[in-house]
Amino acid sequence: MRILTGVKPTGNGMHLWNYLGMYKPFLEKVKWQEWFLFLPDFHSLTSVHDPEVMKRNKYRLAAELLALMPEDNRFMIFEQSEMQHINDITWVLSSVTPYSLMLRAHSFKDSQNKNSDINMATFNYPILMAADIIGYDVDMVPVWKDQKQHLEFTRDIAQNFNNTYNTEFFKLPEPYIDENLALIPGLDGRKMSKSYDNFIGIFDDEKTLKKRVMAIVTDDTPLEDPKDPETCNIFALMKFFATDEQLLEIWAKYRAGWYGYGHAKLELLNMLLEYFKPAREKYKKYMADYSLVQRELDAGNKKANQLHSQKYQALKEIVWL
Amino acid sequence: MRILTGVKPTGNGMHLWNYLGMYKPFLEKVKWQEWFLFLPDFHSLTSVHDPEVMKRNKYRLAAELLALMPEDNRFMIFEQSEMQHINDITWVLSSVTPYSLMLRAHSFKDSQNKNSDINMATFNYPILMAADIIGYDVDMVPVWKDQKQHLEFTRDIAQNFNNTYNTEFFKLPEPYIDENLALIPGLDGRKMSKSYDNFIGIFDDEKTLKKRVMAIVTDDTPLEDPKDPETCNIFALMKFFATDEQLLEIWAKYRAGWYGYGHAKLELLNMLLEYFKPAREKYKKYMADYSLVQRELDAGNKKANQLHSQKYQALKEIVWL
Repeated sequence: MRILTGVKPTGNGMHLWNYLGMYKPFLEKVKWQEWFLFLPDFHSLTSVHDPEVMKRNKYRLAAELLALMPEDNRFMIFEQSEMQHINDITWVLSSVTPYSLMLRAHSFKDSQNKNSDINMATFNYPILMAADIIGYDVDMVPVWKDQKQHLEFTRDIAQNFNNTYNTEFFKLPEPYIDENLALIPGLDGRKMSKSYDNFIGIFDDEKTLKKRVMAIVTDDTPLEDPKDPETCNIFALMKFFATDEQLLEIWAKYRAGWYGYGHAKLELLNMLLEYFKPAREKYKKYMADYSLVQRELDAGNKKANQLHSQKYQALKEIVWL
Repeated sequence: MRILTGVKPTGNGMHLWNYLGMYKPFLEKVKWQEWFLFLPDFHSLTSVHDPEVMKRNKYRLAAELLALMPEDNRFMIFEQSEMQHINDITWVLSSVTPYSLMLRAHSFKDSQNKNSDINMATFNYPILMAADIIGYDVDMVPVWKDQKQHLEFTRDIAQNFNNTYNTEFFKLPEPYIDENLALIPGLDGRKMSKSYDNFIGIFDDEKTLKKRVMAIVTDDTPLEDPKDPETCNIFALMKFFATDEQLLEIWAKYRAGWYGYGHAKLELLNMLLEYFKPAREKYKKYMADYSLVQRELDAGNKKANQLHSQKYQALKEIVWL
């Protein structure tokens, strides 16, 4: 079983929702299950045009992911732009992709609704994404709400190719959808998201982390009164990081009164610092020395390139370029 | 001065118009002026989906061009799909190419007029073409009537990149337009073209060549009457292949009478066979042994790749992928 994830280095630090929703399920299996993660830096070009920013974003994201990995994992991280034939595969796929399909892409429709122009890298994005996925014979791709269409496009494009050349050359990847994915509340109770600015960044320095946790929105029940943990944003976050015993204990404190939201916030903060301690330390090491990150990327690039180039050579045999 | 031409291996044999209009001006200069000719096999994918046909078309076109070359030339022929970074450059360029620009492409508008769908390789064609041209620091590109827009797009895209990254990285190629390009008449007097089926293929076997020449349309002036060479399709073609002395002589025969169109056709046929004799012999040799063609392609691919890869490495430094 091979899982593939692509994560854009946007420059946003990883926050709790990213961690719990996007990475934790695979971190738990990565000792025995292949997990390929690539940094779609060609995709990033669609929005970022500053080389220094591109570089910083890339190293930051890679450092975060590497910091979270257990020892002896089957994880591989690599850079899209280092794949020798990624854009070649994209071109071949584009020849079996109808223009009309692209017009149905959400990213395109959004821009139409805004009456704005988009660049062609954005317009072609779904084809590049297909090449990213089916170039490695991936079995499964985690998809979240807004990304379902991408994988459908990928499957459509792969199927178009297979039909055109009467072959089973491209494996059709299955979506991995975590139906049970909990809603991780942000500081204000809405879904945690960068765009709401209600997130808790797990690799932020301790001061920022504290400020964030302290800003969690609560009701105005007085200190001495009993409180309802089930409607509290602090408790909702604790659920992901506390043991059952801890949770029971805290639940009792909420119900007993004389346990203020300030106390709860400090407990959550300590939980987070404890939970992410090893990762945060590793992260600091990586960020202090980019060459450590680069070494991991180099290894991943090499291995991914081998797989991808083999696939492209075989593809060339079929279309006989 | 570096000139670049891209010629799609469509499978159509070269005919007189192709030779006189597209190649002869550069064949005359190729001993001292660099001429890069590439086979846009990624482009061909937009229409041809049969690998065997792709291969045959490619070798045939390459054999024709190689057969026409003088010794000691500065000609280089290479295959687009062998350029390691052609599609990478295309992707980078697509990130500075507005969608709205592509909507103005003739190829796209044609399909809209026909209410038909096109594939994305066709839609993206102008961006790939830009990468083909500006990736080699080309000075000049010959353009014919329908292709003027392509070069304008190429210049727009190169300029967009230069503006975005505040650089002069891409050289803006100049169009080479042969304003004096003679109208080469086909068998029926209209412009010679594959689509009118009024062409004379210069590498066709002698029997076909003869049949074609004999099918040139003339008026019905009787054998014994004087004829007007200036309105005759045969004479119009002779002009390109006869010496001045020969032309004067034939002109006199036309005017004298008792010189039939059949005679004229045979004279034209002999002129063509004589004129193209060395090329036709070389062509046969190449077609009998594809490895001779492949050897030339390999050499061209190697040299072109060096140039193109250097350009891409420098490009990466600018956008810092």
